[in-house]
Amino acid sequence: MTLRLHTTLDLAPGPLTLGKDQSHYVANVMRAKPGEDVLLFNGRDGEWRGWFDTVAKSGVVVAVEEQTRPQAPESDLWLLAAPIKKDNVDLVAEKAAELGASVLWPVFTRRTVMSRVNTERLAAHMIEAAEQCERLTVPEVREPLALDKALAGWDAARPLIFLDESGGGAPLVQVLAELPAGPLAVLVGPEGGFAPEERELLARLPFARPVGLGPRILRAETAAIAALAVVQAVRGDWNRAPRQ
Amino acid sequence: MTLRLHTTLDLAPGPLTLGKDQSHYVANVMRAKPGEDVLLFNGRDGEWRGWFDTVAKSGVVVAVEEQTRPQAPESDLWLLAAPIKKDNVDLVAEKAAELGASVLWPVFTRRTVMSRVNTERLAAHMIEAAEQCERLTVPEVREPLALDKALAGWDAARPLIFLDESGGGAPLVQVLAELPAGPLAVLVGPEGGFAPEERELLARLPFARPVGLGPRILRAETAAIAALAVVQAVRGDWNRAPRQ
Repeated sequence: MTLRLHTTLDLAPGPLTLGKDQSHYVANVMRAKPGEDVLLFNGRDGEWRGWFDTVAKSGVVVAVEEQTRPQAPESDLWLLAAPIKKDNVDLVAEKAAELGASVLWPVFTRRTVMSRVNTERLAAHMIEAAEQCERLTVPEVREPLALDKALAGWDAARPLIFLDESGGGAPLVQVLAELPAGPLAVLVGPEGGFAPEERELLARLPFARPVGLGPRILRAETAAIAALAVVQAVRGDWNRAPRQ
Repeated sequence: MTLRLHTTLDLAPGPLTLGKDQSHYVANVMRAKPGEDVLLFNGRDGEWRGWFDTVAKSGVVVAVEEQTRPQAPESDLWLLAAPIKKDNVDLVAEKAAELGASVLWPVFTRRTVMSRVNTERLAAHMIEAAEQCERLTVPEVREPLALDKALAGWDAARPLIFLDESGGGAPLVQVLAELPAGPLAVLVGPEGGFAPEERELLARLPFARPVGLGPRILRAETAAIAALAVVQAVRGDWNRAPRQ
């Protein structure tokens, strides 16, 4: 299988020297060999095919040859997620990237137990997932913020679906059918769910809609992954096929 | 939070002595105390409330008091999944239980790398997830079988949706809209996907339908979890709310 790498560098025909960390990854972790093909994307210039001209710890050089896919619009789908324990938040980051989220925004809620979020680690997970699932972008990981602060500056043109584990919301598919096409955000709480005052705050916001995910109480990470899948299947890009 | 336990024993008012392994779990892992409430279900008699009368390693005794929910029908939704590596198959088992799958059936395909499946471990993960997500049943874990053998005895009244990573299928939501209500099965391949001859075999079966999950190449475990979520949201039980 051809290695596929995200880069922040511009992509055009010619030699491209990868940065130190990525050179280490390519040479020592993926053990790429000179002459092997590689695919590159940067979120701006589409996807390009090249081959490894030099593989060295000091710097891997790719001979970039030709564009294989033009840059194309991707989903404008944010995930706001209360931080949960490491393994689960890593899982959410990885799966959100696979499911086409454009932004992962950790938000602290009343019942959030975790006090810190390693956004660099989350971004690394999302880049790796984006490389493997054939995206042309990597999701943005925003700086963690308190939920009320995140909501204070909200653009009302982006409906916010919040996963209400209390059962107060309408079914997700029904709410999605009522929303216009365009930007969307999904908000998932921590393991303990939202506090009553948070649910009241959200109920007062015209752009926010409570939704239910059925009769079973889903873990926070399951709710996030399941909701993103349904959004993409029902009104997202699941009507498109992968590259043949 | 009230401990919620699955048991194979009949449920009715009166004393109930839990088995050895479960007594150990209740006493030493969950550290339950005498007098604490507990909820019990067995897949036949609904859910019952009781309290711990005796908590001892030798045997925990529950005083079963009253039925809190009657037994009710749950989804008839099978997941056939090619074995993948331990952490990922455990994740699929746990999430399939949360998402209401009734059967998990490991099937060996041409490109399946794993040669063994620990069905006991998978069943334990599913029981724990069922206990926590408020199901009234636990999913059945079937004995692993070769895909062609599993298909040979297939009941054509159960449509089989197979997740075709080659992009040959119609979008999942479209296929679901064309299928009658009732029994359903989802089939997900291993990391390497289905072999061409498997896809040809499936194409010849009148009950099998290839579906696509969008333009990104999902990992096997992501595809399984995402497909189950969409099935439940679109034609399953996500129109129902959790117990208030």
